[in-house]
Amino acid sequence: MNDLRKRNSHAKPHQDVSTRFGQRIKELRTQRNLTQVGMAREFGINRSYISQLERGRKSVSLNTIEILALGLKLSIAELLSGI
Amino acid sequence: MNDLRKRNSHAKPHQDVSTRFGQRIKELRTQRNLTQVGMAREFGINRSYISQLERGRKSVSLNTIEILALGLKLSIAELLSGI
Repeated sequence: MNDLRKRNSHAKPHQDVSTRFGQRIKELRTQRNLTQVGMAREFGINRSYISQLERGRKSVSLNTIEILALGLKLSIAELLSGI
Repeated sequence: MNDLRKRNSHAKPHQDVSTRFGQRIKELRTQRNLTQVGMAREFGINRSYISQLERGRKSVSLNTIEILALGLKLSIAELLSGI
């Protein structure tokens, strides 16, 4: 694990950032009563990618983060708040 | 370009997200009077990677974003605010 992460591990809960992000996306999706299929269609993203992302299996890129923020009509900072 | 980006292109300035992120990192680094070499050593990241990142040549991953936020002692949302 990166030194910085080790030195700051007290600062962050034990879950890795991809897991925390996946939970955030699921929370936002379900708040909007969107299914994964609906979100995939609306955002132009593959459904199985959304499923893996929500399970923390993807380290998403900044480009994908922007696409998700646009689709959810949030700023990137709003999308990542609390993570 | 992703449909969502096209439909929302009015919402975002013409610069792509990697360029905007690179400028943000450079701004934060110089505010702290850090050179790229100093930042590389302190964050455990390769200097040439920082240089490419600041020039918008990298679509960074969420993991790298977290490392940068930890190193800059910001939350991920603070690091990405305004992008």
